[in-house]
Amino acid sequence: MSGNLLVVHGGGPTAVINSTLYGVIKEARLHHEIDMVYGAIGGTEGIIRENFRDIGKISEEMLELLLKTPGSAIGSSRYDVSDEDYKAMPEIFKRHDIKYVLFNGGNGTMDTCGKVHRVCMESGVMVMGIPKTIDNDISAIDHAPGFGSAARYIAESVAEAGQDVKSLPIHVSVIETMGRNAGWITAASAAARKNPDDAPHIILVPERPFDEDKFLAEVKRFHEKLGGVVVAVSEGLTDKEGKSIVPPIFQTGRSVYFGDVSAHLAGLVIRKLGIKARNEKPGLLGRSSMALVSETDREEAILVGREAVKAAVAGKSGAMVGIRRLEGESYGIDTPLIPIDKVMLHEMKLPDRYISGNGMDVTDEYLEWLRPLVGDIPDYISFKA
Amino acid sequence: MSGNLLVVHGGGPTAVINSTLYGVIKEARLHHEIDMVYGAIGGTEGIIRENFRDIGKISEEMLELLLKTPGSAIGSSRYDVSDEDYKAMPEIFKRHDIKYVLFNGGNGTMDTCGKVHRVCMESGVMVMGIPKTIDNDISAIDHAPGFGSAARYIAESVAEAGQDVKSLPIHVSVIETMGRNAGWITAASAAARKNPDDAPHIILVPERPFDEDKFLAEVKRFHEKLGGVVVAVSEGLTDKEGKSIVPPIFQTGRSVYFGDVSAHLAGLVIRKLGIKARNEKPGLLGRSSMALVSETDREEAILVGREAVKAAVAGKSGAMVGIRRLEGESYGIDTPLIPIDKVMLHEMKLPDRYISGNGMDVTDEYLEWLRPLVGDIPDYISFKA
Repeated sequence: MSGNLLVVHGGGPTAVINSTLYGVIKEARLHHEIDMVYGAIGGTEGIIRENFRDIGKISEEMLELLLKTPGSAIGSSRYDVSDEDYKAMPEIFKRHDIKYVLFNGGNGTMDTCGKVHRVCMESGVMVMGIPKTIDNDISAIDHAPGFGSAARYIAESVAEAGQDVKSLPIHVSVIETMGRNAGWITAASAAARKNPDDAPHIILVPERPFDEDKFLAEVKRFHEKLGGVVVAVSEGLTDKEGKSIVPPIFQTGRSVYFGDVSAHLAGLVIRKLGIKARNEKPGLLGRSSMALVSETDREEAILVGREAVKAAVAGKSGAMVGIRRLEGESYGIDTPLIPIDKVMLHEMKLPDRYISGNGMDVTDEYLEWLRPLVGDIPDYISFKA
Repeated sequence: MSGNLLVVHGGGPTAVINSTLYGVIKEARLHHEIDMVYGAIGGTEGIIRENFRDIGKISEEMLELLLKTPGSAIGSSRYDVSDEDYKAMPEIFKRHDIKYVLFNGGNGTMDTCGKVHRVCMESGVMVMGIPKTIDNDISAIDHAPGFGSAARYIAESVAEAGQDVKSLPIHVSVIETMGRNAGWITAASAAARKNPDDAPHIILVPERPFDEDKFLAEVKRFHEKLGGVVVAVSEGLTDKEGKSIVPPIFQTGRSVYFGDVSAHLAGLVIRKLGIKARNEKPGLLGRSSMALVSETDREEAILVGREAVKAAVAGKSGAMVGIRRLEGESYGIDTPLIPIDKVMLHEMKLPDRYISGNGMDVTDEYLEWLRPLVGDIPDYISFKA
């Protein structure tokens, strides 16, 4: 079945979403069934606006640049697709001779992908999903492309900030991480540790309700022992009722704007313990840093792009390319196809076995799972005892 | 004059302070006048506590690791040196056969350095200063080691976040930079721009009082044109009366703890314009990132360490190793010695000629001055118009 291929990005970018695009273009060039490779400019909204751009014929040099470009090179959106939009799609695809559609995104985008698949069943357009999220909250897979780099960013940044705080131990540094509902990224800060007493000293994930007294007692304990203390905290930390520990300031559609959890915790340490504290919140930098991309993550991002093209050309539709970790001593994965209704909007949280007993650290089992995704954290030298 | 050399770090670390330490150790090994190289562990306080560690005999491998280690490998402090402390120093140096003392730090540390020089004039200990600050506010020099890397961090991070915001243009991102009293780092965000409309769109430095109406008008204008807007702002932004635009929360000695300027500005955009906004504040990460070190900065950091050793051994005291930019087409520096009383506590701010007419951007003249210090910012690819 010969025709054009359309690739669509949904939701927030990752450090390697353009690596997946690289994989899609590379693979598409190998299949005579595919004429043009279109990018939907500006995400799902780009489909409705028929804003398609031929991206398949760029030079090798430009292709390589995709591997080093943050953000989404074809744009993205958080567009809420309406029923009318879905109904209009088969006609749009027909008009542009689009036979293959790839959706690259997280849970919300996989929901869209499943619905597009359903409206396209009659017209025979193949619709495939590609996983992507820094949050690692897509279910039915071991991990999602984008997570490894976000995890590496936090691990290496916390290791570096830890050296800074250790050398001038005058304050508590609270470092805020992305991942509103799932603590995968926050937990990855633990990979920064090589020696006892290394940062992070306290890890607060949204899977555990915030206990102010326990938190302050831990800060005090580490402060007395080390002087400088590093805390890693999820932006989505909640209390026992499941409410954010800082009040929401602004709400629009599915998104809520909260005050910074890290500033709130630093303020608590200052006011309640009289200990100097500060906060760091890299925010968007944590999903757009090219220097701290995980090589494994980049390779897997390319791979899932390639596999999605292969599956679509082979006549598969209504599935997402999965990532399954293989048994065995050394790290390896395969990429089984997962029916899209097993994925749609099912959020995967950090399981209990990965969170330590006091709820403020992670287990060795988590670190074993994490390490191949993040890669090595550099060694440092210190003359301080 | 044969004896030991003591090196002391003061104030906040930079990404290359350990590179200067590398230079000091490397150079000291070449001079038979120097027996041991001691590090004062924990900064100036380490002198008073006589917490000296022999760091001159480490392996080449460990030495190379210094170039890749953030923080200060021998620690640092913000210790307020008392008159009694100064008086005690000649005896302490004598006790440990210390004939050469190097202070590596910013304005406050150079003040200490000058005073130590004076109390040591009779005993003949040579006391030299080495410039170091991310803020670039040391006067009488073209720029300070540490600044180039902090500038590169902000430039590359803003370029990356700019790609993220461009690809999903749903909000205003306010990125907070270090540099409380001087806008050198904030201004360096402009190096992120390669094309018109690239981030940062607004730059707010502490040398210009914050004008809320003008700021909001600029945000609105860029939002209407581009959707996504990136603002770079100094942590120390003040109003017309010179007061921080956010209230101080905590004060201790010379340091004041403020609420986050970036969160304050994002809140303004949300409340007053109804536009979605968020804030990023890399904080300590901006002075500890090894991946984004400027190579020029690292080389110059090594050089000033070497030059300080040479000067001390040559019998110089009471001076700081300077950095002077040479005239000519290509970038080059030399390292004249500057009498320490020309440096002490004189803060160098961004001059008017580097700030644009509307007070919310920098001039081409600044960028020309900046570029060799930061190095190249990578190219990216985008299929968006």
